[in-house]
Amino acid sequence: MQEKLNELKARLQAVYDLHGAAALLYWDQATYMPPGGAEARGRQLATLSQLAQEQFTDPAVGRLLEELQPYAASLPYDSDDASLLRVTGRQYQRALKLPPQFVAEIASHGARAYQAWTVARPANDFAAVQPLLERTLELSRRAAEYFGWPAGGHVADALIEEADYGMTVATLQPLFAALRQQLTPLVAAIQQQPAPDDSFLYRHYPEQQQWDFGVEVIQRFGYDFQQGRQDKTHHPFMIKFGPGDVRITTRFRENDLGDGLFSTMHESGHAMYEQGVSLALAGTPLGGGASAGVHESQSRLWENLVGRSQAFWSYYYPRLQALFAQQLGDVAQDAFYRAINKVQPSLIRVDADEVTYNLHVIIRFELELALLEGRLAVRDLPEAWRASYRDYLGVEAPDDRDGVLQDMHWYYSQIGGGFQGYTLGNILSATFWQAANAAHPEIEAQMAEGRFDALLSWLRANIHQHGSKFTAAELVQRITGAPLSIEPYIGYLTNKYGALYGI
Amino acid sequence: MQEKLNELKARLQAVYDLHGAAALLYWDQATYMPPGGAEARGRQLATLSQLAQEQFTDPAVGRLLEELQPYAASLPYDSDDASLLRVTGRQYQRALKLPPQFVAEIASHGARAYQAWTVARPANDFAAVQPLLERTLELSRRAAEYFGWPAGGHVADALIEEADYGMTVATLQPLFAALRQQLTPLVAAIQQQPAPDDSFLYRHYPEQQQWDFGVEVIQRFGYDFQQGRQDKTHHPFMIKFGPGDVRITTRFRENDLGDGLFSTMHESGHAMYEQGVSLALAGTPLGGGASAGVHESQSRLWENLVGRSQAFWSYYYPRLQALFAQQLGDVAQDAFYRAINKVQPSLIRVDADEVTYNLHVIIRFELELALLEGRLAVRDLPEAWRASYRDYLGVEAPDDRDGVLQDMHWYYSQIGGGFQGYTLGNILSATFWQAANAAHPEIEAQMAEGRFDALLSWLRANIHQHGSKFTAAELVQRITGAPLSIEPYIGYLTNKYGALYGI
Repeated sequence: MQEKLNELKARLQAVYDLHGAAALLYWDQATYMPPGGAEARGRQLATLSQLAQEQFTDPAVGRLLEELQPYAASLPYDSDDASLLRVTGRQYQRALKLPPQFVAEIASHGARAYQAWTVARPANDFAAVQPLLERTLELSRRAAEYFGWPAGGHVADALIEEADYGMTVATLQPLFAALRQQLTPLVAAIQQQPAPDDSFLYRHYPEQQQWDFGVEVIQRFGYDFQQGRQDKTHHPFMIKFGPGDVRITTRFRENDLGDGLFSTMHESGHAMYEQGVSLALAGTPLGGGASAGVHESQSRLWENLVGRSQAFWSYYYPRLQALFAQQLGDVAQDAFYRAINKVQPSLIRVDADEVTYNLHVIIRFELELALLEGRLAVRDLPEAWRASYRDYLGVEAPDDRDGVLQDMHWYYSQIGGGFQGYTLGNILSATFWQAANAAHPEIEAQMAEGRFDALLSWLRANIHQHGSKFTAAELVQRITGAPLSIEPYIGYLTNKYGALYGI
Repeated sequence: MQEKLNELKARLQAVYDLHGAAALLYWDQATYMPPGGAEARGRQLATLSQLAQEQFTDPAVGRLLEELQPYAASLPYDSDDASLLRVTGRQYQRALKLPPQFVAEIASHGARAYQAWTVARPANDFAAVQPLLERTLELSRRAAEYFGWPAGGHVADALIEEADYGMTVATLQPLFAALRQQLTPLVAAIQQQPAPDDSFLYRHYPEQQQWDFGVEVIQRFGYDFQQGRQDKTHHPFMIKFGPGDVRITTRFRENDLGDGLFSTMHESGHAMYEQGVSLALAGTPLGGGASAGVHESQSRLWENLVGRSQAFWSYYYPRLQALFAQQLGDVAQDAFYRAINKVQPSLIRVDADEVTYNLHVIIRFELELALLEGRLAVRDLPEAWRASYRDYLGVEAPDDRDGVLQDMHWYYSQIGGGFQGYTLGNILSATFWQAANAAHPEIEAQMAEGRFDALLSWLRANIHQHGSKFTAAELVQRITGAPLSIEPYIGYLTNKYGALYGI
């Protein structure tokens, strides 16, 4: 059995080496590649994706999985090997459903569409990407059809499963509806109150100083620069090439202090998750984060529950103020804390405050469903986007740049399954935060001293090290002893923003 | 026939896409990769090399080449298709000789050795790389044995052929001996003369200004930043990921103006060659430079025949002086010209002047022969290195950092075949320069106006566009109507340095 297991692991390692190589090609495309490189890069990404898919779906992998079934059955559910065989088996069955040629087509189309988006967004030119997006929708539908979904299910279920295994439109819609129901009155109540002044966040903050401060913070969080690095890009992301090389990207605006800083913290949360996966799981389907939602719980936890907290800034604000004496010399700590937590319905998801953020996500989730069902055509998407923003957030984008062109997702990947994880992540972040603080009441006091080791250790032990062994629902059950609920998250928002706005 | 040819080209394109992807992994390793990434990177490079080798040596490629033989025979020798089938056939036969597993082993070992070298060189720690280098020698010998060499030939011929097809130890040794014979008295005569003052080159030159000046120069040369970019590394190199993405790397020392500037010009020469290859040849064995020697002729031509010429500096020196007013305000143009052409036997090949440079190369060439023949053991290499430098150049390295650890070549690639191209390149650079100036007498006057289009056009038309269609010897014959000779090069050196040193 051990021999068969080793053979399986060697085959999986080769697949993940190809994925790692492809990831580097993608990283370079989004950071340093000159325009002339796009054409070959698209082909190269397609070639690597196709090879990885071919090697993963090799019948020998299926045979090994089958032969190892009795061994898996003899092991505890949460053992590494049982988890490996369970999760690999699931992904293998899924991968078999996609023809390798189709995988290559998706990768190659994605590279083209992404490149076009990087030009179209600054030019506010939706027309330039519309035909590419139509093709993306067609490919997304075909992918869903290849995967299939249970009778009575939704076409999007086939795609959601990829990112958030175990979640479906049927489970997500009530969750999101309940959330919207709780958030709408909270947003309304906040809007009755006087808005805090945050104008000082938009003074001139030189990029290099922003960069240095962010790096200092995330090093203290626990992000390891010996096993990663940070670069600049249009739309920040985290990416992994192997267990020892987990990179983040960020961006800065010199007239917006929050943009780069919170984005840096956010991506470091993703990256610390990947840096914390047990080395024993590397090079297998278990070697990365459990799901989009659990991943996002880590980034949002560091960005918001840590990075926008009073305790964090009680340590860091004097440092920030010293660094930017000219810009923040006249700003008290409490005023700063109120400013970075200002709630205001706005256009850009990644800049949105914690309270309105989920409404951005729910808009995209519902647009994806409408597109996939055929209720909405791509050419009508910009107008549908504007209508949703009027309805959910009461704001109107002056152009597509800050409307339908703002997120990269649809322009490099599929339509469907790409957004629910953001809101699941928020819900999970508060769930995990509550559990971590219950286990380690010293977390807040540590934060007020610029220390994060109790928090990081708890996350490592309870979440990071397990990689993809457990689903989001299983992790929640293991940690809280109860199923997923929006209550901790609503509780967190109500307490924090109730206090902030005196409601 | 056309269908078979298209199938062959599609297969070759896939191979070159894998090579392009592997090249990006290598580029990243040498520029941005954090230390933790090394282990996975080694495996990833090995995987990609092995896949490229497997796909290139697919029996279907051999069958297509065979079936297309009559078609090739019906075409003119210098047509694209005849050249494609000729050169691909040659490389296919050669590639068949290496087991794919061995190719992967070489790539994986190379990544490990390179990583070790980046640590060992600054630490002056030859012992740390010695076992790796012993393994490199063993792998190099095994490679030579796989390839084989003709009776009466030399083990190194099997490796030289890879980089400089058509050259052998038997043809190179007399060439190098003649060169040494001409250079030794020239160096001696120069050393009789008073040395020019070059101390002002070692004043403080801020890196960013050096970078900007270099970029301005190579853009004027014709290097296209839309199809490339420049980054920093330890040991500068040029690398290609596809026809539209040809990158260079450079390095700067703030107390040495020449180091970064001439290195930037040098790498731009390599890159303009690759950027100039006809697009019709892309994605095939014809789509890159003809040989190591021809490649080096392009880099040395821009670095030396252009970049160290009076005409070039008559335009650029006033600009450089304005940029570095503090450092060069008191330095006349002629004094600057003399300083950048100062001849002085020294330790570092890449910093060597034009006259002594080839002695550095010949030392390495002879050490490679001694290692491959077994006359020299790796553990004795540092001492042999020092002895050669005493003998050829009359200088002694105080440590291995500036001795045997100075070049990256042996630490990422094989021992053998890696150096002769540098001196061939010098010989060829003067040969091509003479021909270009005979065809376009306006080249020098253009340079004095900061224009390089007559020169670049001639290089594009006579060398670049052909990619690898012709061998070095064939190119020389086509361009000069005569075989390769050291005369133009000796003539160039004698004229230039005779005038400079009044001898």
